[in-house]
Amino acid sequence: MPGTFVTFEGGEGTGKSTQLKLLADVIMARGLPLVQTREPGGTPEAEALRTLLVNGDPGRWTAEAEALLNYAARASHLQKIIRPALASGKFVLCDRFSDSTRAYQGYAGGCDLKLLDALEASIVGRTRPALTLILDIDPAMGLARAKSRADGSEDRYERKGLKFHQRLRAGFLQIAAAEPKRCKVIDASGSIGEVTARVLAAVEPVLNG
Amino acid sequence: MPGTFVTFEGGEGTGKSTQLKLLADVIMARGLPLVQTREPGGTPEAEALRTLLVNGDPGRWTAEAEALLNYAARASHLQKIIRPALASGKFVLCDRFSDSTRAYQGYAGGCDLKLLDALEASIVGRTRPALTLILDIDPAMGLARAKSRADGSEDRYERKGLKFHQRLRAGFLQIAAAEPKRCKVIDASGSIGEVTARVLAAVEPVLNG
Repeated sequence: MPGTFVTFEGGEGTGKSTQLKLLADVIMARGLPLVQTREPGGTPEAEALRTLLVNGDPGRWTAEAEALLNYAARASHLQKIIRPALASGKFVLCDRFSDSTRAYQGYAGGCDLKLLDALEASIVGRTRPALTLILDIDPAMGLARAKSRADGSEDRYERKGLKFHQRLRAGFLQIAAAEPKRCKVIDASGSIGEVTARVLAAVEPVLNG
Repeated sequence: MPGTFVTFEGGEGTGKSTQLKLLADVIMARGLPLVQTREPGGTPEAEALRTLLVNGDPGRWTAEAEALLNYAARASHLQKIIRPALASGKFVLCDRFSDSTRAYQGYAGGCDLKLLDALEASIVGRTRPALTLILDIDPAMGLARAKSRADGSEDRYERKGLKFHQRLRAGFLQIAAAEPKRCKVIDASGSIGEVTARVLAAVEPVLNG
């Protein structure tokens, strides 16, 4: 694919979405064609699944069901948005992707990792990110940040408790350790400007590549 | 599991749902504890996914996404309805189950059959039906029947065209041929009473077992 696929990953309150927008501004300022999107979401079908996933009682879906819903949304997103954008040479910045499913539903939620491997092979195939930025912060600090900005919507995962989020962080770090070339762990503590500087340093090789 | 799990399968307009209700009446008249349910559906979460699957444009989901949504609904249904009912010794009659995913999304829709194997192993596991009745009819006749009763709702699969439904029928017959002990093919042509007589003959061994 002629385009470049970059994903942002991390737990609640890591500032992923803020950092993604700031990076998008930098990319656009350089005149590079950009698609900025998110998961679960990015198409009307996938956004409908997002609504089912991020609202309601924390126990309403099993980890397996959550993984399947995320991959159904991902299939739609890949087909209609990500693959066409990459095929036409665009830069694709995506807020969460397969690593979130592995960390949230697999490492933190207990979903069978072999099922996740089969899903990734079948749905994502070769459309893997060139670079994944994993924003890392102490989960207690991240949850406090997330709560301070909360409006009570999309908080189903936040309500899964601190232990879930500790397993989640460990899961993301395990993913990063397994694929150090693709995954860069970014210290997400400190000011927005400090984190942006770390993000830009990690992205620079891909931007110039 | 002390209960008995029986599923009804088949294409559009085969009379599955009518026959399932008539069989439920027979079972209840014998004083057997019964749960009558359907897929996708059976729980509020699964019914929300059903709404996404059976309405709208025929191409809104890929076959892979459809399979994942069906299995997400199935995970919820198994956890909250089917497994508890079987554990408490009930008779469970279900309108569609895994064979529908294999026939609709796999054989007719082109979804990777290996992905379906992985999903079935992970989500269904050992909770497989004791008996599956596959109601079989010429797809042109079935679609005509389905249209005659149609109110314009839940018709997304009917609108996939005759060729899809010919592949679907062939898929169900292939499933039946692969597991002749579990699957009984029922000729669904003729009157409701004629088909009921065939259903009862096929179910009798399980009812008395």
